Amino acid sequence: MASVRVFNVFIRQLNAKTNFSVFAFSVSSKHSSKCNVSNIVPEGNDRTFASTLLRPVFAYSSLPLHAHTFATMSSIERVVDLRSDTLTAPTDAMRKAMAEAEVGDDVHREDPTVNRLQSLAAELCGKEDALFVPTGTMGNLLCVFGHCFERGSEVMLGNSSHLYLREQGGVAQWGGVYMNALPNRKDGTFSLDDVRSKFHDGKDFHESKTSLIAIENTMNGRILPMDFIKELRQLANELNVPIHMDGARLLNAAVGLNVPVSSITQYVDSVSICLSKSLGAPVGSVIVGSKQFIARTRRIRTALGGAMRQSGVIAAAGILALTDMVKRLHIDHENAKTFAKGIIQYSPQYINFDVDEIETNMVWFDVNTKLPTYEGRNPAQEFCYRMANRYNDDDVVVKMSKFFGVSVRCVFYNGVSQAHVKLALEKFHSVMKAWISESNF
Amino acid sequence: MASVRVFNVFIRQLNAKTNFSVFAFSVSSKHSSKCNVSNIVPEGNDRTFASTLLRPVFAYSSLPLHAHTFATMSSIERVVDLRSDTLTAPTDAMRKAMAEAEVGDDVHREDPTVNRLQSLAAELCGKEDALFVPTGTMGNLLCVFGHCFERGSEVMLGNSSHLYLREQGGVAQWGGVYMNALPNRKDGTFSLDDVRSKFHDGKDFHESKTSLIAIENTMNGRILPMDFIKELRQLANELNVPIHMDGARLLNAAVGLNVPVSSITQYVDSVSICLSKSLGAPVGSVIVGSKQFIARTRRIRTALGGAMRQSGVIAAAGILALTDMVKRLHIDHENAKTFAKGIIQYSPQYINFDVDEIETNMVWFDVNTKLPTYEGRNPAQEFCYRMANRYNDDDVVVKMSKFFGVSVRCVFYNGVSQAHVKLALEKFHSVMKAWISESNF
Amino acid sequence: MASVRVFNVFIRQLNAKTNFSVFAFSVSSKHSSKCNVSNIVPEGNDRTFASTLLRPVFAYSSLPLHAHTFATMSSIERVVDLRSDTLTAPTDAMRKAMAEAEVGDDVHREDPTVNRLQSLAAELCGKEDALFVPTGTMGNLLCVFGHCFERGSEVMLGNSSHLYLREQGGVAQWGGVYMNALPNRKDGTFSLDDVRSKFHDGKDFHESKTSLIAIENTMNGRILPMDFIKELRQLANELNVPIHMDGARLLNAAVGLNVPVSSITQYVDSVSICLSKSLGAPVGSVIVGSKQFIARTRRIRTALGGAMRQSGVIAAAGILALTDMVKRLHIDHENAKTFAKGIIQYSPQYINFDVDEIETNMVWFDVNTKLPTYEGRNPAQEFCYRMANRYNDDDVVVKMSKFFGVSVRCVFYNGVSQAHVKLALEKFHSVMKAWISESNF
Amino acid sequence: MASVRVFNVFIRQLNAKTNFSVFAFSVSSKHSSKCNVSNIVPEGNDRTFASTLLRPVFAYSSLPLHAHTFATMSSIERVVDLRSDTLTAPTDAMRKAMAEAEVGDDVHREDPTVNRLQSLAAELCGKEDALFVPTGTMGNLLCVFGHCFERGSEVMLGNSSHLYLREQGGVAQWGGVYMNALPNRKDGTFSLDDVRSKFHDGKDFHESKTSLIAIENTMNGRILPMDFIKELRQLANELNVPIHMDGARLLNAAVGLNVPVSSITQYVDSVSICLSKSLGAPVGSVIVGSKQFIARTRRIRTALGGAMRQSGVIAAAGILALTDMVKRLHIDHENAKTFAKGIIQYSPQYINFDVDEIETNMVWFDVNTKLPTYEGRNPAQEFCYRMANRYNDDDVVVKMSKFFGVSVRCVFYNGVSQAHVKLALEKFHSVMKAWISESNF
Repeated sequence: MASVRVFNVFIRQLNAKTNFSVFAFSVSSKHSSKCNVSNIVPEGNDRTFASTLLRPVFAYSSLPLHAHTFATMSSIERVVDLRSDTLTAPTDAMRKAMAEAEVGDDVHREDPTVNRLQSLAAELCGKEDALFVPTGTMGNLLCVFGHCFERGSEVMLGNSSHLYLREQGGVAQWGGVYMNALPNRKDGTFSLDDVRSKFHDGKDFHESKTSLIAIENTMNGRILPMDFIKELRQLANELNVPIHMDGARLLNAAVGLNVPVSSITQYVDSVSICLSKSLGAPVGSVIVGSKQFIARTRRIRTALGGAMRQSGVIAAAGILALTDMVKRLHIDHENAKTFAKGIIQYSPQYINFDVDEIETNMVWFDVNTKLPTYEGRNPAQEFCYRMANRYNDDDVVVKMSKFFGVSVRCVFYNGVSQAHVKLALEKFHSVMKAWISESNF
Repeated sequence: MASVRVFNVFIRQLNAKTNFSVFAFSVSSKHSSKCNVSNIVPEGNDRTFASTLLRPVFAYSSLPLHAHTFATMSSIERVVDLRSDTLTAPTDAMRKAMAEAEVGDDVHREDPTVNRLQSLAAELCGKEDALFVPTGTMGNLLCVFGHCFERGSEVMLGNSSHLYLREQGGVAQWGGVYMNALPNRKDGTFSLDDVRSKFHDGKDFHESKTSLIAIENTMNGRILPMDFIKELRQLANELNVPIHMDGARLLNAAVGLNVPVSSITQYVDSVSICLSKSLGAPVGSVIVGSKQFIARTRRIRTALGGAMRQSGVIAAAGILALTDMVKRLHIDHENAKTFAKGIIQYSPQYINFDVDEIETNMVWFDVNTKLPTYEGRNPAQEFCYRMANRYNDDDVVVKMSKFFGVSVRCVFYNGVSQAHVKLALEKFHSVMKAWISESNF
Repeated sequence: MASVRVFNVFIRQLNAKTNFSVFAFSVSSKHSSKCNVSNIVPEGNDRTFASTLLRPVFAYSSLPLHAHTFATMSSIERVVDLRSDTLTAPTDAMRKAMAEAEVGDDVHREDPTVNRLQSLAAELCGKEDALFVPTGTMGNLLCVFGHCFERGSEVMLGNSSHLYLREQGGVAQWGGVYMNALPNRKDGTFSLDDVRSKFHDGKDFHESKTSLIAIENTMNGRILPMDFIKELRQLANELNVPIHMDGARLLNAAVGLNVPVSSITQYVDSVSICLSKSLGAPVGSVIVGSKQFIARTRRIRTALGGAMRQSGVIAAAGILALTDMVKRLHIDHENAKTFAKGIIQYSPQYINFDVDEIETNMVWFDVNTKLPTYEGRNPAQEFCYRMANRYNDDDVVVKMSKFFGVSVRCVFYNGVSQAHVKLALEKFHSVMKAWISESNF
Repeated sequence: MASVRVFNVFIRQLNAKTNFSVFAFSVSSKHSSKCNVSNIVPEGNDRTFASTLLRPVFAYSSLPLHAHTFATMSSIERVVDLRSDTLTAPTDAMRKAMAEAEVGDDVHREDPTVNRLQSLAAELCGKEDALFVPTGTMGNLLCVFGHCFERGSEVMLGNSSHLYLREQGGVAQWGGVYMNALPNRKDGTFSLDDVRSKFHDGKDFHESKTSLIAIENTMNGRILPMDFIKELRQLANELNVPIHMDGARLLNAAVGLNVPVSSITQYVDSVSICLSKSLGAPVGSVIVGSKQFIARTRRIRTALGGAMRQSGVIAAAGILALTDMVKRLHIDHENAKTFAKGIIQYSPQYINFDVDEIETNMVWFDVNTKLPTYEGRNPAQEFCYRMANRYNDDDVVVKMSKFFGVSVRCVFYNGVSQAHVKLALEKFHSVMKAWISESNF
C-alpha cells in the first residue's frame, strides 16, 4: 500500500513537472505483481522522458498495485470509471474456466464449450438454437442479414437504437439493407401507428420491403414495456414480419422486471445478447433463434470473418456470464438508483432527469445549459471535465460519457462498488457546489 | 367527334354488361389515326370477350380520338389526370427534334446532341460539367455515389425526401451508403442544429462519416427558402462537406421564385434535374457538378448500366425541356393555385391545407377523418375513389394520388389545361356536396 | 469556315429536293477544318443517290470530308469505322417510328409501345415476359440479380465473357455476387467437367452458392454450339441451377445458324438482347424470362435507376430492331467473310486467324509480333495505327479496335457497306505491303 | 453412466501422476453411452505415453468410447488427424497466459496485451503498426478493404488462392470488390505478363480499377519463391499498386526458408498472419501495415463486428504463438517430409506428387484414378474413406481432407507427433496393399 501511495505521489509530481497528463493507471486483476503503465506514457517526444522518470518508481515500488481496490486508499487519486459496462474485467472464475476449457475446432462444430454455451443461450431464451459470435455488432449484423437475406430488404427500427446510430451503419454498408427509422420514445418504444403506416409490403417498387422490425431492450437503460412488445408481436403477425431484439443488455431487463428471459423473448424471433457488457465476459455475444435461422446466420458468420477456431476458451467465460454473473446484476441496478437519488438533490435546476426512469444499470441526465462553461466546452462536457479532474486536495476522478447534446451517461457494473458510488457522489457534490458558485443561479 | 361519342357510349355499355371495368383510354398525340386500347382490355378470361366486343367499335369509328383534348367534348367521359407530372407526353416539337437529332455513340462521347444537352445544363446551373442519365433515380444514385465514393460514407438528408423514401433505398442497397435522416419540416428544410449535432466527422468508429448533405427542391411542391440554402452552405463549409440538391423539379422552384437557376445552384455542389416531369421530356435526367465530380459519376454510370449509345435521340427532347418548356411552367403554377382556391371553400372543415403553401405545381391536402368511408377505404382513399368514379350523369373522372395517411396530392403539368381545372373543380364540388350530405357534419 | 457555310446551304437544298432528310452535320471540335457527315447519308436505296448528289459538294467545298460511302470519291478522306456495331445510327424508319410512337408512363406500365416491344421480345424467345431496359449492362445486371437474389450467391461464367471482363465487375460491385470464372474456350464454351467440379452447392460455408450459370452468344463473334447449350442445360437441370444467356448479339447467332431465336433460347431461363448493336436501335436492351423472374427484375430495375417514363419513344425503334433489322444481318456476316477472305492472303505469316471461325459479324486476328513497331506501340497497336492514318496519297481511314495482347477486332454492321469493305481491303493491302517492306521477313 | 464416472476418476489420477494435463472430456449430447476422448490426448512427446496409460482405462471401463468410433474397439483406436492445422489445441503455456492476461477495453485501445501482441507482430514484419482480429478471413477482408476503399476497386489475385476460393467471396459479397483472377501455378506464383496485361488502370470505364495485388504464402504448403516476390514488387511499383500477402501460414514459409519474417514482408504493403493454424493459438489473426493503413482497417473492423473488448485474454495466446511456437514449426515440416517419403514408395503408380515440393507442413497428392472405388466415391474419397476406417484388427484412424478432384491434403502440426506419423504410414501401407490387391494393376 505504501508503494502505491508513493507511486501516486510521483505521478502527481510528474503531472506538475511535465507538459503532459497521466491519464490512466491499471493493474492486472489476477496477478497483483504486475503493473500496467502503458497508459501513463505520453505520446511523441515525451515518451523517453517519461520512461526515464518512471523507471525508478517501478523499481522502488515493486508494486502489488490494484486499480480496483483503491477505494480504501487514503490521500491518493481514486478513479471511478462510469463510462460503460464494456469496461468489465473478467472475473477470476472466468479466467479459471478459460484456462480449463475443453476446446475443438468450432468451424467444424467440434468445440464442446462453444456448443454448451450455445445450448445454454438457446434454452435461456426458449429458442431452438444459438450461435456464438465475437462481438455484439456482429451479432446484430448476422440477425439483420439472417432475416433480410434478399436484396431490397429493409429493417424498421427506432432512430435512437444502437443498430441505427452506433454500428457504423453496418447493415447498410455491408448488406445493402435499408433502415426505415421510426422516432423512438424515451422508453425505447415507438408508435405502432408509425409501424403500420410506414410498413412497406414490397408492392410499391419505390420502396424496399420491410423484412424485419428491430427493437432494443434495454435501450439507454430503460426496460421495454412488456405491453409494447406484446402489441408489436400482434401487429408483426398481422404484417407477417419477424422481430429481432437487440438484447445487448437483455439480462438487465429480465433482472429489472424479475422475470425469466424467455418470458420476454417469447415475443420475438431472434435475439442478440452481449456477454461482455454487464455480464462481464471479456469477449463475445450470442444470438438465438430458430434452427433454420441460426443455420443461415452460421453461414453468414463465416463470410463476415466471425467463425473462430478453438473459441471454447472464450465461450467458457460466456457460460459463467449467463449463469453466475446474472445473479449479481441487481447490485448494479441498486448502485445506479443510489447514485441517481444522490444527485437528484440538485435537480431539476442543474441536473435534469426523472429518478423513476432509472430501471437498470444506467443513469442519464441533462446538464442545465445556464451553468458556466469554459474553453469551448458545452455544459455536459464541462460537467464531465470537472468530474474527471482533480481540484485542490480532491483526488477522485469520476469518468462519465458525454453523449448527444447536453446528455451525460453513467453506467454501473461489476467493478463499480458501493464505495465507488459513495466516492462519485462526494465528487459530484463538490463539483456542483463549486460550479454553482460560479454561476448566476 | 361523333365517333368518339359512339365509342364512349359503347364503353359505358360494355362496363354495364360485363364484370370488368374499363379503366383507361388514350390516343397517341402525334398521329390521331391510331388508338391505344391496351388499357381497356381486362385481365385473364375476359380478354377474348373484350376484344370481340371492341373490334367493331374501332372498325366503325375510324377514330381521330385524342385523350388530352376531350375537355371540350360533351356528354362523354372526360378524364383529368392529376396523379403526377411524370405523365407529361412529349410535345410535337420534341418528337420532331428526336426524329432529326444528330447522334453518335455516347459511350465514346461522340453524340453531339447529348454533348449539347450537357453543356446547356451545366451552363444553366453555373457548373463546369453535366451528365445525361436515363432516370432521376439514377441521377441521384450517381450524385450520392460521386460524393460518397469511399466505403463507410453517409449522406445526411431529410426524412421526407424522395431519396430517403421513394428510391427503394438504392444508395444503401447498391452502394452501402448510410442514410442519416433528419426530421424534415413541411417546407422541405430541416434544423441546422440537427445538422450540427448529428454530423459525423468520422472519428468515432461507431459512426459512418458524413460525406454529403442532400436537400430537395422543390419538395412536395414547396420551394426551399433561399435563406435556408445559404445558411446550410455556410454550415457545410464549416463542416467541410459537399451539398447535393435533388432538383427533380428545380426549374419549378426557379420559376416560382422568378430567379435564374444558377442563383439557387450556386450554393450546392451537385444537382440532379428531371427532364421528364414538368419539363415534359419523355425520358431522362441530367446531373451537374465540377469536372472532377462528373468524371467520377460518368464512370459509375457505366457500371450501373446507364451509359446509353445514340442517346441523342432522347437528349434532343431534353434540350427543349430545358429551354422552351421552362417558359410555360408558370401556367402549371397558376392552375395549381386556381384549383387550390377553388377547393378551399370547403376548408378547413373538410379539406385541410394552407393555400399560401401552394408555391409551384402541386396541391397537397388532408381529408377530414370524420367524413364517412366505405369498403375499408380511409378518408383520403374514399375521396380519391369518389373523384375517380362517375355518379349518375357525371362523366368526369379526376385521378389524384393518395399518399401517407389521409393526404392527397394533385399535380398540374402540360396536359392539364384551364378547362381541366374547371372540370376538376366541378367534380370536386359535386363529390363534396354528396359526401357531406352523407355525414354528420 | 466559308466552305462549311456553303456546305450547309447545300444540305438545306438537298433536303428540299429529296425524299429523305439530312439529319445531322457536325464539325469536330478540335479541328474545325474537318467535317463529319456520317449522318447525312440516308438508309438503303437512297444511299447511292445521295452519294451522287453529295460528290460535287465535297469537290466544291474542298472540305476534308468523310463518311461511310464515299468510296468513289476522289481527293477526300474516306472513313471505314469497324470499331464496334454499337456505332449503328438509327434508320429513317426508326426515326419515324420514334416520332410517332404512342407513349404513356412506363413506370405505371401505361406505355403501349414499350408493352408491345416487350410482348414481341418474349414471343421471339418463347418466354412468358420481357422487360425493356436502357442498356445491355443493366440487362445483364438485372438478370444476374434476378436469379442471385439472396446474399452469398454466385454466378458461374466464362472468364472471357463480357459479364466478367467488360461490365466493371458490376454484379460484384453493386450486388455482392461472386463470379466463379471458368476458362473459356475460343468458341465461347467452357468445360462441363469444370462446371461440375467447381459448382458450389452451398453446403460448404467457405464457398458462395452457385445460383446461376451465365453463357454468352455470340461471344467474340462466335456462335455457341447448340450441342454445348443442350448439354449444359442437362447438367444445369441435374444441378438445379438456372442459365442466363447474355445474348447481346443473339440475333446474329440465330441468323448465322438460320434457326428461330426460340430454338436457341428454349435451353436457357433468361436472355438479354441488345437492340443497339447490330440491330441498330439507338438505345436499349430487352431481357426475357418467366413472369415471376421478370416481375423480380422489374422491381430491381426501379432501384437501379432504369425505370424510364415515356420510353415508348425509344422502344419504337426497338420494335423495328427486332423485326426489320434482323432481315439484313446476313449482309454484315457476308461482309465480315469477304473481309476475312481478303486479308487471309497475308496469313499466317502476318495475320493469324482461322477464316472458318468467322461465323457472324466480327473478324478477330492476331498480328505477327515480328513486324516492326514504333513509339512504344505493340504490333496490334501499330497495325491499327497504320490502318487509321493516311500515307502519301492514301485518303482512307480504317478504324479498328485493339484488344488484349496483339488481337485486333473488326465489326461489320449497318453503316459498313460492300464499298467500305472494298476500301478497307485496299487499305489493308497497302498498309501490309509497306509494313512488310520495313521488316526482315 | 457408471463407466463414465470410473473414467473420470481415472482421468483425475492420470492428471496427478503425469506432467501433462487432461483438459477435456465430453460425452456426446445425444447418446450418453458414447464418449469423445479426442481431447484427452496430450501435446507432443507425451502423446504415446498417454496412449499407453489410457489403453487399459478404455479396456476397464467397457465404455463404448470413440474419438470417433471406439465403440467396438478391443484394444484401443488410435487417431491421427491430418485434416488441418486449424485443429491445433492451445498449449498449457497459452492457457496459463490467457488466465493471467492483463486486459482492458480494446475498443478504447486500453488492452495492454492486445497492444503488446500488435507491437510484436508489427516488429516481426518490419511494419509500422498491426491489428488483432478474430479470424484470418476477417484479416483478409480488412486488408482488401483497407486498400480497395473506393467503390469500383478490384483485387488481382491467383485463382487457387484462399481469398478467391475459400472465403465465400467475401470481398465481393460485402465490399463489392471485383476479383481479377489470374491462373495460379502450382508453386503459388502467377505470370507477371498476366499481371501486366490484365492490369486495369481505371481509364476504361468497362473495367474496375486494380487497387491491389494479393499473393498467398505459403499456398497449399508451397513457399512463394523470393524471386517472384521481388519481381512482383518491382512491377507493382511500376504500376503503382500495393501488394497484400495472405500470410496465414507465413511463419511456415520463413521457417522453411530459414530467414527472418521481415525479409519476406519487406516486399509487400500488408500481411495477414493466422495465429490459430500451425502457431497454435485458439483464436485470432493479426494484420500489419503502415500506420495509415492500420488506422483505416481499425475503423472497418468495428463496422464488420470484429472489435472485441477485453481481447487480451486471447491475444495472450497469440503472443506465445508468435514467439515460442515458431521455434517448433520445423518439427511439422520434418514430419511432413517423413510422411511424404514414406508414401512415395507407391508413387507414381498410385499416389502422384513430387516429394521435392514438400516445403513446409503439408503433403498434397493425387490418387490414381484406376484404383477401384465403391458407393459413388471418387478415388480420393475412397482413399480417405479407407484411411479413416478400420479393417480387421487395424485400430488406427487417419483423417485427411479430400479437396478438388482427386487431390488429398495432409497437414502436420503441434498435435501430430513422430509416433503419429509412424502410425499413419503403417495405416497407409496396409490400406494401399489391400486396395491394390483389388485392382487390375
